[in-house]
Amino acid sequence: MRCITQYKDKMDNLNCINRLINCFTGLPGVGYKTAERYAYSIIESDDEFVREFCDTLLDVKKSVKFCETCGNFSDKESCNICDKRPHDTICVVKDPRDVIAIEKSGVFKGSYHVLHGVISPLDKKGPDDLNLKSLMVRLRENKVSEVIIATNPDVEGEATANYIATLVKPSGIRVTRLARGLSAGANLEYADQVTLAMSLENRVVI
Amino acid sequence: MRCITQYKDKMDNLNCINRLINCFTGLPGVGYKTAERYAYSIIESDDEFVREFCDTLLDVKKSVKFCETCGNFSDKESCNICDKRPHDTICVVKDPRDVIAIEKSGVFKGSYHVLHGVISPLDKKGPDDLNLKSLMVRLRENKVSEVIIATNPDVEGEATANYIATLVKPSGIRVTRLARGLSAGANLEYADQVTLAMSLENRVVI
Repeated sequence: MRCITQYKDKMDNLNCINRLINCFTGLPGVGYKTAERYAYSIIESDDEFVREFCDTLLDVKKSVKFCETCGNFSDKESCNICDKRPHDTICVVKDPRDVIAIEKSGVFKGSYHVLHGVISPLDKKGPDDLNLKSLMVRLRENKVSEVIIATNPDVEGEATANYIATLVKPSGIRVTRLARGLSAGANLEYADQVTLAMSLENRVVI
Repeated sequence: MRCITQYKDKMDNLNCINRLINCFTGLPGVGYKTAERYAYSIIESDDEFVREFCDTLLDVKKSVKFCETCGNFSDKESCNICDKRPHDTICVVKDPRDVIAIEKSGVFKGSYHVLHGVISPLDKKGPDDLNLKSLMVRLRENKVSEVIIATNPDVEGEATANYIATLVKPSGIRVTRLARGLSAGANLEYADQVTLAMSLENRVVI
């Protein structure tokens, strides 16, 4: 904001450009310089692009809802995955981006459950802030044989996975966690100690 | 585009998100992954932000024009700098971003002339594609004592500078070029050969 004021002092006739730069800095990972670059490209782009951009922004904001079953993005009450796929195996993920990542791998054929966050005391996020109640309802109402917890392998992800496991296990449903070990194409020499230790512990018979 | 189609196959209900990702990839330096990140942040941001974003985009596109005198951004026929500053020294720059950079240095007190590009045969940009005619008109109509050419010190910038110099010199106006040499805080050891050679050639008496 300091930068914007400084700039405004010098070019006070172009208030709208400052406002646009300000808007762009609202996007994740965009600082003042990048926002400036985006704003100038908008000025130089054709009207058609800017109109399409605005229409799409408003359209996305208006039409994208969350699936009532799994919490994934959807433009209907229930998303395409929940409509078409079996609910006997549920993969629990942090956010809708993770659904897309797993879908791209092409291996998982069950349905998802999006938590919209993980347990993180630093960000003041507890279990009640997650989309967990509807998961428990799904587990009661469907014949679920397995819950795969696919949160990130970091502190918050682990804590969330353990919390969900303690919730789900009493009902007798199998709870699994994504395998950890060396990533494809990795180099043993450069692998970190924790990953290497885990890949040794979880070694598989060939 | 290949990525977008791939993604669309799998999540065909969320066409508007794909369209938004597509729009974001139209910004300079934004690839598919970054555009995806921006699009998701839009979905998760509040309505107020998106409305403000759209309003500003349209506002910028509608109200930002180019100054009739110098070619800089302006919301009037003549920009603030042309209105207030003397026209006896004209600094010629590639684009409006350069005006802001030089303004930030706070040293130059004359007016500017924005070329909107440089001579670049690879990009099919010749002298006729630049805002040069109005520069010659300004030089004829005002009592200009100096033209400072502030294009980038690269091949295209140099070519453009030389071209303008040959145009302007016959009228007896002093033509100068920004000094080249070591940048502030630089390290001799890491300076490239060309810069070092130039800084030796253009050494100044202390």
